[in-house]
Amino acid sequence: MKYSFRNDYSTICHKKVLEKLIECQDEQNIGYGEDIHTINAKRLIQEKIKNKSDVYFLVGGTQTNMTVISHILKPYEAVIACESGHINVHETGAIEGKGHKVLTAYSKDGKLTKELILNILNNHTDYHMVKPKMIYISNTTEIGSFYTLAELKSIYKCAKENDLYLFLDGARLASALAASDIDYPDYAKYTDVFYIGGTKNGSYLGEAVVFNDLNLSKEFQFSIKHSGAMMAKGFVASIPFEVLMEGNLYKEIGENENKCAIYLKEELKKLGYEFYSDSNTNQIFVNVNKKCAEYIEKEYSFEKWSDIDDDFLVIRLVTSFTTTIDICKDFISYMKAYKN
Amino acid sequence: MKYSFRNDYSTICHKKVLEKLIECQDEQNIGYGEDIHTINAKRLIQEKIKNKSDVYFLVGGTQTNMTVISHILKPYEAVIACESGHINVHETGAIEGKGHKVLTAYSKDGKLTKELILNILNNHTDYHMVKPKMIYISNTTEIGSFYTLAELKSIYKCAKENDLYLFLDGARLASALAASDIDYPDYAKYTDVFYIGGTKNGSYLGEAVVFNDLNLSKEFQFSIKHSGAMMAKGFVASIPFEVLMEGNLYKEIGENENKCAIYLKEELKKLGYEFYSDSNTNQIFVNVNKKCAEYIEKEYSFEKWSDIDDDFLVIRLVTSFTTTIDICKDFISYMKAYKN
Amino acid sequence: MKYSFRNDYSTICHKKVLEKLIECQDEQNIGYGEDIHTINAKRLIQEKIKNKSDVYFLVGGTQTNMTVISHILKPYEAVIACESGHINVHETGAIEGKGHKVLTAYSKDGKLTKELILNILNNHTDYHMVKPKMIYISNTTEIGSFYTLAELKSIYKCAKENDLYLFLDGARLASALAASDIDYPDYAKYTDVFYIGGTKNGSYLGEAVVFNDLNLSKEFQFSIKHSGAMMAKGFVASIPFEVLMEGNLYKEIGENENKCAIYLKEELKKLGYEFYSDSNTNQIFVNVNKKCAEYIEKEYSFEKWSDIDDDFLVIRLVTSFTTTIDICKDFISYMKAYKN
Amino acid sequence: MKYSFRNDYSTICHKKVLEKLIECQDEQNIGYGEDIHTINAKRLIQEKIKNKSDVYFLVGGTQTNMTVISHILKPYEAVIACESGHINVHETGAIEGKGHKVLTAYSKDGKLTKELILNILNNHTDYHMVKPKMIYISNTTEIGSFYTLAELKSIYKCAKENDLYLFLDGARLASALAASDIDYPDYAKYTDVFYIGGTKNGSYLGEAVVFNDLNLSKEFQFSIKHSGAMMAKGFVASIPFEVLMEGNLYKEIGENENKCAIYLKEELKKLGYEFYSDSNTNQIFVNVNKKCAEYIEKEYSFEKWSDIDDDFLVIRLVTSFTTTIDICKDFISYMKAYKN
Repeated sequence: MKYSFRNDYSTICHKKVLEKLIECQDEQNIGYGEDIHTINAKRLIQEKIKNKSDVYFLVGGTQTNMTVISHILKPYEAVIACESGHINVHETGAIEGKGHKVLTAYSKDGKLTKELILNILNNHTDYHMVKPKMIYISNTTEIGSFYTLAELKSIYKCAKENDLYLFLDGARLASALAASDIDYPDYAKYTDVFYIGGTKNGSYLGEAVVFNDLNLSKEFQFSIKHSGAMMAKGFVASIPFEVLMEGNLYKEIGENENKCAIYLKEELKKLGYEFYSDSNTNQIFVNVNKKCAEYIEKEYSFEKWSDIDDDFLVIRLVTSFTTTIDICKDFISYMKAYKN
Repeated sequence: MKYSFRNDYSTICHKKVLEKLIECQDEQNIGYGEDIHTINAKRLIQEKIKNKSDVYFLVGGTQTNMTVISHILKPYEAVIACESGHINVHETGAIEGKGHKVLTAYSKDGKLTKELILNILNNHTDYHMVKPKMIYISNTTEIGSFYTLAELKSIYKCAKENDLYLFLDGARLASALAASDIDYPDYAKYTDVFYIGGTKNGSYLGEAVVFNDLNLSKEFQFSIKHSGAMMAKGFVASIPFEVLMEGNLYKEIGENENKCAIYLKEELKKLGYEFYSDSNTNQIFVNVNKKCAEYIEKEYSFEKWSDIDDDFLVIRLVTSFTTTIDICKDFISYMKAYKN
Repeated sequence: MKYSFRNDYSTICHKKVLEKLIECQDEQNIGYGEDIHTINAKRLIQEKIKNKSDVYFLVGGTQTNMTVISHILKPYEAVIACESGHINVHETGAIEGKGHKVLTAYSKDGKLTKELILNILNNHTDYHMVKPKMIYISNTTEIGSFYTLAELKSIYKCAKENDLYLFLDGARLASALAASDIDYPDYAKYTDVFYIGGTKNGSYLGEAVVFNDLNLSKEFQFSIKHSGAMMAKGFVASIPFEVLMEGNLYKEIGENENKCAIYLKEELKKLGYEFYSDSNTNQIFVNVNKKCAEYIEKEYSFEKWSDIDDDFLVIRLVTSFTTTIDICKDFISYMKAYKN
Repeated sequence: MKYSFRNDYSTICHKKVLEKLIECQDEQNIGYGEDIHTINAKRLIQEKIKNKSDVYFLVGGTQTNMTVISHILKPYEAVIACESGHINVHETGAIEGKGHKVLTAYSKDGKLTKELILNILNNHTDYHMVKPKMIYISNTTEIGSFYTLAELKSIYKCAKENDLYLFLDGARLASALAASDIDYPDYAKYTDVFYIGGTKNGSYLGEAVVFNDLNLSKEFQFSIKHSGAMMAKGFVASIPFEVLMEGNLYKEIGENENKCAIYLKEELKKLGYEFYSDSNTNQIFVNVNKKCAEYIEKEYSFEKWSDIDDDFLVIRLVTSFTTTIDICKDFISYMKAYKN
């Protein structure tokens, strides 16, 4: 059986999440997120972030992005993102489907900066153009980089100075928490709304949207239902967060992912491999030639990210809550056996 | 502990579904519905309906309705529904949110007929009005009634004669299968697209959309993602259907629900209660006075459906895969003890 | 040459409007409604309504309705209208195209009342349904009736008590001003936003949107452009209003229309004709048999409104700024010559 | 009185258009574009382009772009444009407002090429991303450049080979016809749909949409009304095209514009001025220092296009049907009098 480094959403869920399902299997709960598990998961998140933010549980990342953005923006308002941002590239136009333009800036490392944001603002000054009103960033980013606390603060300051909302996509927040100096309470302090990803961090589904600006969450349940994002069995989305937010499990998942990914990176470096981007999170991007890719494919799954030239390509290796150092050691052994 | 007759989505899932999750917990599967569970669930459904229809697994009912309808209709095309139809009343404008008008006809029993449809068509004849292009019906309906095969055939014939698509919402298809003479293959023959509900029939989530007209499913995956309805862990939505479609489980769930509901209805009749609508499916609507409602509330959960007058109201009792005749017997005993 | 009673938009424009175009033909003006004609037309309207409302000039009625409604409402908010309302029937789903549900109440005379509005509010109480947030009425209505000042005040009071916006469609406001006791300043006092129709009242195009609630017009120019409703030559839409709002011309157009229509109605009554609705405005709805309709068609144009039965139908006769009592006398003579 | 080189939409309309209005002022015409003027204008266009294309008359450019694009594309389909394209920059997100992503490529001269298009196609290969389905180009472009026939053919060939529609925005088609070797019939042969701009070429409003692929125009009137773009007085939009398409007037307007603009350019060159882009059409972009801009402003209106640095900026001078060589000579004399 091939081990898959293809992504961090190949396995149903963390064992502790499944145990919780088994434990709750005979309960009868109220629908639509008004149940005690949802209330409890919300409380646990508020404790983690040390703030009485408003919390809702949605199913997936694209759904969360489109529901949050369309809830907050007026029809002619736009959201600023990196060119490589998930909402710009990999959501099949879901944000535009809700009527909003995504204004983009190119950045090699997948991160926005104050300068990039101001440049967009300077180019959008009248009613013939959309009105930029929100900044969208991801932590970790789509290419494995992460924001530092100083960077986050700088963007948040820029947002407040320019009357913009700051929305942070935490699809891979576990890995970000483990890699960066931004801790839970900072996300409450330095964003207006963010989400804590479940799907890619040990849950079978679910993203916890956290509104730090309570004006923004007003009537959000209408938008959830209007966007087709309301689960009848709301507790199915919140139960995993009861588990992940208990103790330190969520961050530990990120720590394990990062540890494994960094191990892979360091060992591959020793073997002479180069990297498409410098990542210390759970996605690493390795330059390999095509013969090598074929060799790896025999025993491991991974994603082909992009072609470099006729001979070389970038492959993405992703670690998850199922990855162990032993699995990584096996992989490195396998790579050592490869003769170019 | 109160037993809840409030709805059919209060318990996580049928035990066999949970067992399957446990069985698959260590697997690594491909994302986005391209995994073997999805393929297998699709095959099982095709066998049940005896047709090579195209099948996709989405999360919830409103999401399914809005994704299917907006995938098929052009911007100026409209969908015909009963006034009481779920898309008209209980989806917070999700269909309109996708740009489409819902044209409605009133019908006491919650069911469309050829005559009601033709009446709408006759009133929409030029480009100053929306163009009716799809019929939406639910089986069972929102008020517990169900279509017979003859009725379904009549509507489908009307659809085809008038160049309309017929879309059937099967949020409670298990109950419909058990109550009506419409069998699985009839749904493939006499609709263009329908869905087999999971959420309200033993799964923790999921609706299986079945396109019988293969022209309609072309590029549907784009619409799924565009609507925020694509699960990264697609197998989480399809695994329950592997279980429910295996053997006769899905229909058995409906049979149990209906048996329990009919038992409640017959026994309550004996006690002199009257009913808001004549239902032989898993939702029954009982007229009670307010004192009686308060009495029931002490030991059981249910939904207050609507007020009749200052003294009387309609309550809804819903049975599910967790309901047993013993539970119903206890309830009837409790009702017998009530002194008006 | 047949005279046409088909509608009030068959002739390019009132002669005085054309004279103004000729007068201004050599000017160079600023674009996008920032020119002096627009400023002047806005000032004239503010004087008429005795209020410093915000005024914008759009092209047509459907465009105005969809732009105003979508500017004000959040995605899940809905607008309440009569079943016969223009936005519900005759805009090809433009309001839904902007994402908003139109909630309707049936009323024989085409007018909303406090009771009809409250009934809708009572049925929309949670986030599973759209949130009613705006009332839409037309004066005159689509079937020729008109609101009195008392009726308008009652609806406005209801709106304010229930946190709803009141939007009045004045496509035929000239006829309404002439027929009703509601004067210009009342429209500023008892609506949040309304529009003064140009297209059907002597202009070649144009509707003047008047925001009495200045919070609602904030950034409206973004919405105008976003909806494709911004004219590069904005002065083309405002110049006619300079003419129509000068002195009493606009209301005089309505007075002439009404006078002619009432003449037709009274004379037809004397000839024994009955009416589909009781109108004192510029649209009258006459019941005729099919042979009679054919007879009229030989010499006059009109619109067939609806069938009554196999023998009888309703025809609509509309008067406009081009109609004169002499034209009407000729028509009545022609009708007298008809032998049933 | 300052002469304005600010844009080509500052004067109501060409004198011949106004004469036609005066000539037709007493007519009664059918509404909604079913009148004889519209039929005649359509016929004249078909003769010019030597093709039985379908023709509709809309009000403005943004409206036309959003109505055409949303009529043709499915919700998840996207349109490819230059970064500088009108739909990308200057329509306040109207295309996104209709749900569609605009995919952009940077090009210095404001023109798309086969290579730029193919590059976008190569990056959009699965259902996680929007599906590119249409190419949007403008002739003349937003920065005054124009396509040659060879360039148009190459893009059209690329469109057909890749199952894309080609839509050409002819807001300034008169200038393009005068500058380029693309003649009327070529627009019918080498685009699927294009529009002949009226607003910027002598009409008071109006754009004639020409569908060469008749499959694309099916039910377009529904989309027109659904988008708020249907004029009750449809003849108001088509009458100007009866005038402009009679004989050679439309192209002559472009020839005069270009002649004047080229005169300005050549004379300014002699005075040592440099240009932001090389244009032979009716927009020229001149680099001037701020003092010079202030000097010009005293006697002429123009648009400040962009800053070059602290001292220099680009100004845009636009010629129109009202510009004459004499006006240009005066301007050049005025410029000669400027001492730096």
